[in-house]
Amino acid sequence: MDVLVPFDATDPKSRLSSVLDADERRDFAAAMCRDVLAAVESAGHDPAVLATAPTDLAAPVSVDDRPLTAAVNAALAESTPPIGVLAADVPLATPAAVERLLGVEAPVAVAPGLGGGTNGLAIRDPDFRVDFHGASVRDHREAARALGHDPVTVDSFRLAMDVDEPADLVEVLLHGDGEAAAWLRAAGFAPEVSDGRVGVTRSEGE
Amino acid sequence: MDVLVPFDATDPKSRLSSVLDADERRDFAAAMCRDVLAAVESAGHDPAVLATAPTDLAAPVSVDDRPLTAAVNAALAESTPPIGVLAADVPLATPAAVERLLGVEAPVAVAPGLGGGTNGLAIRDPDFRVDFHGASVRDHREAARALGHDPVTVDSFRLAMDVDEPADLVEVLLHGDGEAAAWLRAAGFAPEVSDGRVGVTRSEGE
Repeated sequence: MDVLVPFDATDPKSRLSSVLDADERRDFAAAMCRDVLAAVESAGHDPAVLATAPTDLAAPVSVDDRPLTAAVNAALAESTPPIGVLAADVPLATPAAVERLLGVEAPVAVAPGLGGGTNGLAIRDPDFRVDFHGASVRDHREAARALGHDPVTVDSFRLAMDVDEPADLVEVLLHGDGEAAAWLRAAGFAPEVSDGRVGVTRSEGE
Repeated sequence: MDVLVPFDATDPKSRLSSVLDADERRDFAAAMCRDVLAAVESAGHDPAVLATAPTDLAAPVSVDDRPLTAAVNAALAESTPPIGVLAADVPLATPAAVERLLGVEAPVAVAPGLGGGTNGLAIRDPDFRVDFHGASVRDHREAARALGHDPVTVDSFRLAMDVDEPADLVEVLLHGDGEAAAWLRAAGFAPEVSDGRVGVTRSEGE
């Protein structure tokens, strides 16, 4: 199945700016995207990056500088389902998690993200369109129902765990084994055990 | 399968004290626990609460005021596997998610929690013991390997999403349909849509 991977090649991961400078955010975002592309390919599917600007990634890249929703819907309009959409910032995605989403034999399957977002879609109805915003997962389910479908929700921590905020980095360090986790380690990040959830620290001078 | 549900009936959810007072935290923790008990029962299993103090819940309750690890290991020592352990603060747990964990036919299956914790275990080796602390999921996997097993990790957002911090409440509001979500709504909490993840607000005067 073709899988669109929308990627912000311009100013990615702005909510990480307290811990990563602009160049680092671009590098880290690309590392996460490569992990996502690898998971899609390992699951036997064909990723295609939909980027806001030209970028160097080992997959077909098309550039569309419109907002995310418009760019994805334009790509959907030019595609023949089945087609997948997978966020570029879910570096914990494994081939098994990807397949749990893409393998759903329903007209619309959604993988929620933390905070009400949508991190993945498997679309088999050519009339389905996306609308990404804060609480998009509910609206994507509603959009599926409006087309007469019973949307399937895929329960996956690995797909839900998008990396947007500093507190998210520890999940990559704890559960990741790809380029994003390696990038963080090389940049000096390490888990920090406290009495609650494990946090993250960055070594000075790295 | 018997399923231990450890429950802090004394001072639960202290990291929610910025948004809930002590009585509210006890009420909300009990509502979350009832959701967990209901999910376990609906999956066809037998929950047993392991509480730090006497508590009024619609399930068998045994009281052990020792720290969590000691109390769970004492209960495991008195049990005959298979046995499950499931956190009391995962109110998004569904019967399907519970069954994905408990149905694993391996000696040890683990469900990670946010921040490196362990929210669920399915134990079929009578020699397995727990050690709950910050990054316990790695150590539980290691403990399984030390017994000669290949631990199975269950990839579930609904089991990973323990509710410890104010930012977690929005996930209950967005994805929950049980007592915990109803309790939050009645207490005036509502999702607040911003440009990033959806947050949470509480109405004044409620």
